[in-house]
Amino acid sequence: MKFQFSKSLDGFSSSAVRDILKLTQGKSIISFAGGLPAEELFPLDAVSEAFQRVMAQGKSALQYGLTEGYIPLRQSIANWMGEKGIQVSIDQMLLTTGSQQAIDLLTRIYIDPGDVILVEEPTYLAAIQVFQSRGAKIVSVSGDKDGLDPDDLKAKINEHHPKMIYVIPTFSNPTGKVWSLERRQSVLNICREAEVLILEDDPYGEIKFGDTETYPSIFALSGQAEGSCVVYTSTFSKTVAPALRTGWVVGDPELIRNMSRMKQAADLHSSTLDQQTLHQLMEHFDLNQHIRTIRAHYEERMRLMADLLTERNWPGVTWIEPKGGMFFWVELPEGIRAEELLPKAVEQGVAFVPGYPFYAGNAKHNTMRLNYTHSDRESLIEGMNRLDRAIQSVLPVR
Amino acid sequence: MKFQFSKSLDGFSSSAVRDILKLTQGKSIISFAGGLPAEELFPLDAVSEAFQRVMAQGKSALQYGLTEGYIPLRQSIANWMGEKGIQVSIDQMLLTTGSQQAIDLLTRIYIDPGDVILVEEPTYLAAIQVFQSRGAKIVSVSGDKDGLDPDDLKAKINEHHPKMIYVIPTFSNPTGKVWSLERRQSVLNICREAEVLILEDDPYGEIKFGDTETYPSIFALSGQAEGSCVVYTSTFSKTVAPALRTGWVVGDPELIRNMSRMKQAADLHSSTLDQQTLHQLMEHFDLNQHIRTIRAHYEERMRLMADLLTERNWPGVTWIEPKGGMFFWVELPEGIRAEELLPKAVEQGVAFVPGYPFYAGNAKHNTMRLNYTHSDRESLIEGMNRLDRAIQSVLPVR
Repeated sequence: MKFQFSKSLDGFSSSAVRDILKLTQGKSIISFAGGLPAEELFPLDAVSEAFQRVMAQGKSALQYGLTEGYIPLRQSIANWMGEKGIQVSIDQMLLTTGSQQAIDLLTRIYIDPGDVILVEEPTYLAAIQVFQSRGAKIVSVSGDKDGLDPDDLKAKINEHHPKMIYVIPTFSNPTGKVWSLERRQSVLNICREAEVLILEDDPYGEIKFGDTETYPSIFALSGQAEGSCVVYTSTFSKTVAPALRTGWVVGDPELIRNMSRMKQAADLHSSTLDQQTLHQLMEHFDLNQHIRTIRAHYEERMRLMADLLTERNWPGVTWIEPKGGMFFWVELPEGIRAEELLPKAVEQGVAFVPGYPFYAGNAKHNTMRLNYTHSDRESLIEGMNRLDRAIQSVLPVR
Repeated sequence: MKFQFSKSLDGFSSSAVRDILKLTQGKSIISFAGGLPAEELFPLDAVSEAFQRVMAQGKSALQYGLTEGYIPLRQSIANWMGEKGIQVSIDQMLLTTGSQQAIDLLTRIYIDPGDVILVEEPTYLAAIQVFQSRGAKIVSVSGDKDGLDPDDLKAKINEHHPKMIYVIPTFSNPTGKVWSLERRQSVLNICREAEVLILEDDPYGEIKFGDTETYPSIFALSGQAEGSCVVYTSTFSKTVAPALRTGWVVGDPELIRNMSRMKQAADLHSSTLDQQTLHQLMEHFDLNQHIRTIRAHYEERMRLMADLLTERNWPGVTWIEPKGGMFFWVELPEGIRAEELLPKAVEQGVAFVPGYPFYAGNAKHNTMRLNYTHSDRESLIEGMNRLDRAIQSVLPVR
């Protein structure tokens, strides 16, 4: 049988992160690669207890559910977002298999092959993958530490007439930056004026360190969901646990309705067992307190990695201390390709993600992303020792 | 904000079944509409015990998993299929969010807009939905009680040069028919010769009644997965419970690899909490015995509905007794449109699915699908009384 694959696979690469995850599974490699939360912080007992509450409700818990997702969980999320100043009703919300599926569903209902999507430079590699699979033309907008550059945004809108822009304004993946309030507002104004849909991805917003100032989401700035040009998505993967694969997306009801129709075709609905468990967990567990615990631990790990990076002081290597989220974004000296450093690092027993897949084009190959949330103190120290040996072997002799 | 939706939404209708499900949720309507299993048969204790075994393994159970799915569950499924004469390895299998996602992923990697997909007439409406969302041209092949008509299949292949054919050869949805061994073999031969991919959907294969003869799947007839022109998908939704949303798809490793890449973009992976729970359930619960229990109950319900249909003896109304699966397919007299009967039925307090959405074109509007698995004895009797009142009101006066 000679297979005739769809054009959707053209130029569509497998996720570098997930391939590394696969490569290193079960091996004694210290991984700074995946965006994995710390397992030891998972609220196992609370999940287990929540599950038992679901089982106690009887057998209907195991039946098919609504495509839009379990109503009580949508209500709990709406209340929770309300506490953070984001007003939504359950009709403006769809539950998804992680926020990854929200990106995919919105792309499927809004983008046709050839349509232009603007992204940050660099940006989340699995979003690029979705846009590629849809045959979209992906164009990067430049930015600085405060967020997207409004002038370049205007220029790119005028030149490319994009349908959508994809952004992670709070503790971005991979750079960890936080957009200023001013930039949030100005990107919103520009996109609203130009009728460009904003997909705001916020998986890390809760993972903030110290007294980091946080700002309203662009979605919150846009006022109300009805008629908003912003679609907002987040997930329980970083605050509770990834295995439950539950994310949510909020936006104008017409967009949500069409995403739900597409989700019917895609998988009918996500696991309602997980959704019901999360609902019970939100009702009977202090999620905000748990998030404070996560923040404290992750900040400690981030600080340790920052100290180790400072200590190494590799010549020509630069990085910025993240204010939240899960990653360091490291620039190596010009001419060193992180993807060539990776095999040497794996040989030493440590993994990371080379930076190039985070670029939609014009990749800076001398970049890499380091995760600090998944490794404990000992692993962070040993992993940085191993990385040091790999980096020393490629750095020019001083 | 004026939204500019993708062409993928053109001519793409919401699932009639799921819309009815939504309409009737929480109301005192007896529903013969959804393809819902009987809740009272769900193995709640076994699921609960399996979940506790997963929790006992520790916190890593809550971490991200492989896109391809939890390896031990893939192994359990491979063993289970092996007992039924289907030899596959775990590299030839992908776990999905229900078998619905398998249909969607294969379509996304194999079909481009304008490509032709052949289907049975009638066929599963949510598969039609997937194919429509991809912009495929859907062409029906005629058949009889023994399955697809090989001559019409050859003619349609010659005329339309399809890339794929979608079939449910065992207890089909909606008609409940079982293809003969001869038809299975001849469809396989024709498609293999013409290099047309066969997507064999088998959600109901285990739900067989009495001494119904069953035949090997087309996938099994094709020999081995490597190089096979058949992709086979099934699910735990009908044998264990739908809320765990776990299906699987097997086929040539190149197809499975590409489906996995697409799944990375679609949702990274399905719920591994559910996958781990199902693995523990398969290891510590007699699933085959449970399936025998389900069969006995469903056969009893099917028989009751058959008796009630016989008793009513509505003039000009025909149906065939299903040999397995979950549905009666009923033909009303010419000129009666089931979609116009539906509101009258809902008024009387009973729901069903009109037949038209099961057709890719040229719909027979005088058809409807009745589910018998979700209603107990009392509801079946009362539901048929209500349906009788609705039908009497539209039947020509004798």
